[in-house]
Amino acid sequence: MKTFSPSLSKLIQALSTIPGIGPKSATRIALNLVYKNREGGQRLVEALDSAVQNIKACSRCRNVSDEEICEICRDERRDGSIMCIVESPADAIAIERAEVFNGLYFVLHGNLSPIDGVEPKDLGMDLLYEQVTTEEIKEVIIATSTSTEGEATAYYITELVKNTGIRVSRIAHGVPVGGQLEYSDVSTIHHAMRGRTVLESS
Amino acid sequence: MKTFSPSLSKLIQALSTIPGIGPKSATRIALNLVYKNREGGQRLVEALDSAVQNIKACSRCRNVSDEEICEICRDERRDGSIMCIVESPADAIAIERAEVFNGLYFVLHGNLSPIDGVEPKDLGMDLLYEQVTTEEIKEVIIATSTSTEGEATAYYITELVKNTGIRVSRIAHGVPVGGQLEYSDVSTIHHAMRGRTVLESS
Repeated sequence: MKTFSPSLSKLIQALSTIPGIGPKSATRIALNLVYKNREGGQRLVEALDSAVQNIKACSRCRNVSDEEICEICRDERRDGSIMCIVESPADAIAIERAEVFNGLYFVLHGNLSPIDGVEPKDLGMDLLYEQVTTEEIKEVIIATSTSTEGEATAYYITELVKNTGIRVSRIAHGVPVGGQLEYSDVSTIHHAMRGRTVLESS
Repeated sequence: MKTFSPSLSKLIQALSTIPGIGPKSATRIALNLVYKNREGGQRLVEALDSAVQNIKACSRCRNVSDEEICEICRDERRDGSIMCIVESPADAIAIERAEVFNGLYFVLHGNLSPIDGVEPKDLGMDLLYEQVTTEEIKEVIIATSTSTEGEATAYYITELVKNTGIRVSRIAHGVPVGGQLEYSDVSTIHHAMRGRTVLESS
């Protein structure tokens, strides 16, 4: 594609490698950053450069971190006795946004998938086992997805933690708040029914 | 929003300033660039830095360019006697993608809009007038949009070029190819009717 400028072509190409951004969006974003909003472009260069250089995995929870140990693991106001296990940093961010959890995280960066060659050690299961056996953890909340791989991973973790005396729970899956029953898929309704809770009777 | 890493927060903030990218997309893109596709993140840093540093406006057609004169204006295989006037570099890229035009461009970077303080000189009308009076241009194709501002700009250019003897044309607006009449808006159907062309009768 001719764009009148080799620099612009290279930028569009680099932007197109981001999942969810096609060539048209990439063109629009590139023109915005180098033309309409050049200051924003410069800020993005600095932020991205710094992030790529500095971000590593927290050696405790495997989440994204600027330091050896991430901000959350270092935060003494967090409850170290509850651990929430998530598939990705994005999932942890989503839970933080809901302000419903004050414990620590453990990020798997995927799910067990023998077909794709993803084994327990790739998900840090050895590190997880070490933590549940040596730290003062009272509950492990598994927040993996309801895909086959997510369920298999949840099962694996349950087996791993079983004999430690630690309580293992799984987040509820069901009809989303604001979602309507009639538009929910069969699998969601199954989960909603099986995960029903007893209401207090007067 | 807590993201476990100040670098990540800054990157998400910088990405959120791009039109069309909300906080959730910004989070997804940021995590992709610093985690899953760090090499792509590094490539994007370099491409964006180089683009922000190098890209300027072509002094002839006002399009994005790495040099004083852009690749298209320098290209001797292009037909310098036809000039297509567009609102934005993105419009010129769209026309190039269609491979239907081999002349040169003139980029307005907007439309006349007295309310927003956009006057003829902001759109380079003086440069345009200089070119149509001194260069060997035979036809000017106006490709501004059908918005009120786009039509006003087209009218202004028509008046500007009127006495030079140069042919002035406007791209056809009508029912898009693949689009259905019944779903077209009234204004599109107006344009399609008024812009109808006579078919050869046998």
